[in-house]
Amino acid sequence: MKKRIVLALGGNALQKQGEVSAEAQKKVANEVGEMVAELAPNYEIVLAHGNGPQVGNILIHEESASTESAPAMPLETAVAMSQGQIGYWLTQAINNAFLKRGKNAKVATVVSQVVVSKDDPAFDNPTKPIGQFYTESEAKKLAKEKGWTVKEDAGRGWRRVVPSPKPIDIVEKKTISELIEDGIIVIAAGGGGIPVYRTKILRRLKGVDAVIDKDFAGEKLAELVKADIFVSVTAVSNACVKFGTPDEEAIGEISAKEMEKYLPEFKAGSMLPKVQAAMAFAEKGGTGIITDIDHLKEALKGKAGTIIKK
Amino acid sequence: MKKRIVLALGGNALQKQGEVSAEAQKKVANEVGEMVAELAPNYEIVLAHGNGPQVGNILIHEESASTESAPAMPLETAVAMSQGQIGYWLTQAINNAFLKRGKNAKVATVVSQVVVSKDDPAFDNPTKPIGQFYTESEAKKLAKEKGWTVKEDAGRGWRRVVPSPKPIDIVEKKTISELIEDGIIVIAAGGGGIPVYRTKILRRLKGVDAVIDKDFAGEKLAELVKADIFVSVTAVSNACVKFGTPDEEAIGEISAKEMEKYLPEFKAGSMLPKVQAAMAFAEKGGTGIITDIDHLKEALKGKAGTIIKK
Repeated sequence: MKKRIVLALGGNALQKQGEVSAEAQKKVANEVGEMVAELAPNYEIVLAHGNGPQVGNILIHEESASTESAPAMPLETAVAMSQGQIGYWLTQAINNAFLKRGKNAKVATVVSQVVVSKDDPAFDNPTKPIGQFYTESEAKKLAKEKGWTVKEDAGRGWRRVVPSPKPIDIVEKKTISELIEDGIIVIAAGGGGIPVYRTKILRRLKGVDAVIDKDFAGEKLAELVKADIFVSVTAVSNACVKFGTPDEEAIGEISAKEMEKYLPEFKAGSMLPKVQAAMAFAEKGGTGIITDIDHLKEALKGKAGTIIKK
Repeated sequence: MKKRIVLALGGNALQKQGEVSAEAQKKVANEVGEMVAELAPNYEIVLAHGNGPQVGNILIHEESASTESAPAMPLETAVAMSQGQIGYWLTQAINNAFLKRGKNAKVATVVSQVVVSKDDPAFDNPTKPIGQFYTESEAKKLAKEKGWTVKEDAGRGWRRVVPSPKPIDIVEKKTISELIEDGIIVIAAGGGGIPVYRTKILRRLKGVDAVIDKDFAGEKLAELVKADIFVSVTAVSNACVKFGTPDEEAIGEISAKEMEKYLPEFKAGSMLPKVQAAMAFAEKGGTGIITDIDHLKEALKGKAGTIIKK
């Protein structure tokens, strides 16, 4: 029986610093394709991925060139657009990596809605800057017009900030599970998923302008499809204590309970959500891994990376 | 046994004239959701759809706000973005139409690559205007810089024109078929599909800037998933002879052979590709239908619409 793994691909598995053209991003996707083709004989593979720079650029284009006849799409729809964009690049890269090996890949990108709660405290405190920079007066005008929350961003200008609620369900979970059962490599919950909530009375789905952390969404996906292993694929081989100091030490295999005491070591919005996601998955009985593409194969054998178990 | 139908949704099943906001388009998608929920007890349903105005607006935004740090995405990637966008709206609309009926929908949008031939004569004669209008000098500068073909568009300015090659295969056909077998409503080949070709020697997939007619792509999809019925869902109940004249007559049930003699009646880029797609499907032994949403249910019973059989 193949083990089932969910890989949450971080920004640098999708884009190299400053290389933002479609062609440059497709090249990076090809590295992911190679990795997936290498792992496919031994694992059932599901890919989740981030979309920070991509959805940022979509919003910049949509908002700065918005007109009456071609109005800007809202954030939730922009996330859907980024799922199509990145999903296409990854799908094609996996197809081609298999073709290089004389095989045909069965791979599908599924547009994914991730359910959040309207009662999530994140909605009272939007923190995630998104889209283009504005002057203070522009920003405040937009805030009034569109109901946005805007904040000054580290001396670089004013930006919209949006809530980052926790994922509680994935609308397409059954479809994704059936695809995996059919032997198909699935790309899902891209960019943390299109954020939707259920209306109170009729339980209808409704999109909401927010961004969901891709590690939390990937962990939720791993849980819902009953994966054995969840991996946060990032820029470094291990989570480290005393990171960036002479006393830096890489964390290898560790229990979720022991990992808890190192939580204050990790940077919010960076290593912290990866560690929290891997820990959450370990606490449910799975294996949570944090590593980079280069160490992934060894990490899956228990020989590299930060490996968190219950 | 449920009959398997592929519905190719035309522009007006996605957008009302001039109502181009995301909210307005979601409302139109809700009408599609209702239709799908009505048909689902009796049919296996696959939706293909157009993307003309949506991908047009994406390109306008991408190109008019392109910068070095946020460069415009190419047309093939913009098609992928439009699949995410429209696929999300349709998926959610179908989810909600089922919820209204106390049911859960199983529905998935699959990002779809449609294979074309680099030897298709369309590549020697780009005809399809796309994206924003430019002045003659801007257009000619862009043509030189980016290798675009540009043309003057009916006195309204200069635009890029792209090839419209014929679809010959759908990369995700097996995945789509397995989803249908699993009882899942599938949205695929959106916007006619992301146009890709296979390289001559290694048969790798490569995106190409082109647009594929959504009726031809929908017909190819119907053929590949072995559908019983292909429907081009458009703005009118029937294809007509002498359309728009006092002698106008609606065509009902007709053989593909007989339909052939009326081909000169139909407008290229409008009714003609719908008739050609429905005829092509009929010639392969299926039923090809042209009708609007209001007559779809009756048309599927053989009581409305233009119905083409072998």
